[in-house]
Amino acid sequence: MSDHSEIRLDLPTGTGSGSGTATITLHRPDRLNAFTGTMARELVAAFDATDADESVRVVILTGAGRGFCAGADLGRGERSFDADDAARAAERGDLGTVGGAPRDAGGVVSLRIAASVKPVIVAVNGPAVGIGATMMLPADVRIAAASARFGFVFARRGLVPEAASSWFLPRVVGISQAMEWVATGRVFDAAEALAGGLVSRVVPDDELIGTARALADEIAHNTSAVSVALSRRLLWSMLGASSPWEAHRLDSAAILELGRGADAREGVSSFLEKRPPQFPDRVADRLGVVPGWPERPDGTT
Amino acid sequence: MSDHSEIRLDLPTGTGSGSGTATITLHRPDRLNAFTGTMARELVAAFDATDADESVRVVILTGAGRGFCAGADLGRGERSFDADDAARAAERGDLGTVGGAPRDAGGVVSLRIAASVKPVIVAVNGPAVGIGATMMLPADVRIAAASARFGFVFARRGLVPEAASSWFLPRVVGISQAMEWVATGRVFDAAEALAGGLVSRVVPDDELIGTARALADEIAHNTSAVSVALSRRLLWSMLGASSPWEAHRLDSAAILELGRGADAREGVSSFLEKRPPQFPDRVADRLGVVPGWPERPDGTT
Amino acid sequence: MSDHSEIRLDLPTGTGSGSGTATITLHRPDRLNAFTGTMARELVAAFDATDADESVRVVILTGAGRGFCAGADLGRGERSFDADDAARAAERGDLGTVGGAPRDAGGVVSLRIAASVKPVIVAVNGPAVGIGATMMLPADVRIAAASARFGFVFARRGLVPEAASSWFLPRVVGISQAMEWVATGRVFDAAEALAGGLVSRVVPDDELIGTARALADEIAHNTSAVSVALSRRLLWSMLGASSPWEAHRLDSAAILELGRGADAREGVSSFLEKRPPQFPDRVADRLGVVPGWPERPDGTT
Repeated sequence: MSDHSEIRLDLPTGTGSGSGTATITLHRPDRLNAFTGTMARELVAAFDATDADESVRVVILTGAGRGFCAGADLGRGERSFDADDAARAAERGDLGTVGGAPRDAGGVVSLRIAASVKPVIVAVNGPAVGIGATMMLPADVRIAAASARFGFVFARRGLVPEAASSWFLPRVVGISQAMEWVATGRVFDAAEALAGGLVSRVVPDDELIGTARALADEIAHNTSAVSVALSRRLLWSMLGASSPWEAHRLDSAAILELGRGADAREGVSSFLEKRPPQFPDRVADRLGVVPGWPERPDGTT
Repeated sequence: MSDHSEIRLDLPTGTGSGSGTATITLHRPDRLNAFTGTMARELVAAFDATDADESVRVVILTGAGRGFCAGADLGRGERSFDADDAARAAERGDLGTVGGAPRDAGGVVSLRIAASVKPVIVAVNGPAVGIGATMMLPADVRIAAASARFGFVFARRGLVPEAASSWFLPRVVGISQAMEWVATGRVFDAAEALAGGLVSRVVPDDELIGTARALADEIAHNTSAVSVALSRRLLWSMLGASSPWEAHRLDSAAILELGRGADAREGVSSFLEKRPPQFPDRVADRLGVVPGWPERPDGTT
Repeated sequence: MSDHSEIRLDLPTGTGSGSGTATITLHRPDRLNAFTGTMARELVAAFDATDADESVRVVILTGAGRGFCAGADLGRGERSFDADDAARAAERGDLGTVGGAPRDAGGVVSLRIAASVKPVIVAVNGPAVGIGATMMLPADVRIAAASARFGFVFARRGLVPEAASSWFLPRVVGISQAMEWVATGRVFDAAEALAGGLVSRVVPDDELIGTARALADEIAHNTSAVSVALSRRLLWSMLGASSPWEAHRLDSAAILELGRGADAREGVSSFLEKRPPQFPDRVADRLGVVPGWPERPDGTT
């Protein structure tokens, strides 16, 4: 656990199950983990920490208490989204600008999750509404508890989908399902989320974390951390590439580099010897083999 | 109803159910609503009208009689698609050019539907073949009657898919399902359309319009018209964006603008007060908050 | 059958069922058809042959014996992927370079399949692992025998997905399913492949080839070869286009050209006369109506 105030970060300990898994928990349970500027900054810091820690192989993101995240905190009332409101400005703090406008706080988080070097599994333990629904889109896997609820409710609040979800949501669930959920703004249950492709599995509430951890273990215990980090960059960034030749160029370079390396030798040897692999390479040393994603168009950060 | 000859346009009347819904009906029932140049022009005019009318929140597109649209009218026989045929030229009229070629009439319609400011629900009441199948792709939701039939039959006619469906179809149903339907040119039933993701629901024939209207009501009665219009632009245009940072830039600007506005205040207030919202903003006044889509590459119209 | 050493190419013969279908069979059954540089070159030559042969309407790709393709041949042990290994270099031969690196052999094959003028059906008869799983992604349809197995196992070997699969896989199965399979590297069965959208059908083992051939017949006996070739180019290339106006430009030009042609006249006439079509046009004569795909960014081949 760390010294954050609105989230918890639990880094891996020990060996065996969970030994490669960090858990980030949205932690304002009395507010159904409603989203704030502080939470945004703490989430960015937490993903910075999990990226920098070689012991972290997978990140699980979940919520404390009955909810995952109820959306933006509306405690300030009707001016909750008004940039000219002093209370909002004070709470929000400085999150930088993009294209001349203050950066949407949801996008600060979602683009940080998208850029995570470690794969991200979201365990949706309860209501996930507004930014609670959009922040999970750049994760790799989303698993829902049976009692989870979802809502892209922006049109019911007089807003538009944020957190770059106009880019992510159609790529995750398809444009038709995305438009139906966004145009109605409806709140829907886990079964509809599963049918629509927003989550890959729905499990009983008391099996949620166990299911997420088992999947994290499957990644952590069988694969090269370098391979997974570079694969994540490749697959997500190629969503924006106009030609498979761009992928061919990147993976030809990566195969050349990795094919000579210690992890590839261990991967082949362990397979031929029918034993679990022990990959020696460090992510920090090989990350440059594939360019980072997403790169900010103007080159700044 | 309007003074069109091959379609009908019914604008909203009254209050309560259907009060925000316009219905556009393909109306050549004796020809299974086969598509013509006149129909193309009337469809463009109808969507111009629904976009300009603030009382229209949602557009339902359907067909009169037993069919939705049987495809291009082949009444002129084997030269039905021959640009050098005088009868075809007279029937088609001037639809402009693109890249030096006469614009495909199906694309004139599908790109107009894509650019609709209001969300579009297609109620497929019977056979939808050729342009009857492709014109529905830029809609947001497609619902089929149990007796509906579909066919991307172009390869059986010696043609290629038109109406920009080579762009839309793989984004709606995935490249593999798209290629199977296009390469075989087969006519398939509503169950196959549902399994393949072409429609989101199949309902008994006599429940089709009611189902479409209920979904339209769900949008019209709960959401901000401005929010839905801008969301539609964001989601569809971001299908063509290479990076989520482009979405982040657009939605940061939109949240800044909308967050100060009357609809956002009403959205938050009505939610906190647990009452239905009454959004005051007009689409015409706020449409510029997000750039239009799709923009024609050469800047002309 | 042809004079290849690691594959078989069977060109169409006779009339009736199968008369338009070429079959390419990976043929190292004693090695579960493990992939080599020789196999890569022979596959490229086979697709060159099927593209050049007007009698070939559809290509079926399958494997001999119990497997489809067990992945790269690891017979040289831990240096199997090491470009500095002399034995590997000798086996691999010269496959050219891209971006300064030796071209990934899997990508040489997958990009050749992607560029096939004839539609490709993969009949997955057994284990398909590594390049065995990725080479099938640019095909149009994938059908699995019940006993088939799949694995994007690269992260378990210390490598990254190759064969441009970082571009193809998310477009075929969606980014979330793609990331789960790639990050875990798990081997999964045909049912999971079907649920995840990697294959469109699972059939009993002894019905696999028959099912693939029936689908090939459906294409070959009902459609214009020119239409199918141009449609394949349109749909795949438009996956990389940022705007549907690009499709509108291409298909307007294609409809103008094809609408005047013999295949369109036959397509309309045969439909109106309710008889099977006999399309006269040759693919080689009309291929230029739509630009080729995928074009190599640097313009070389």
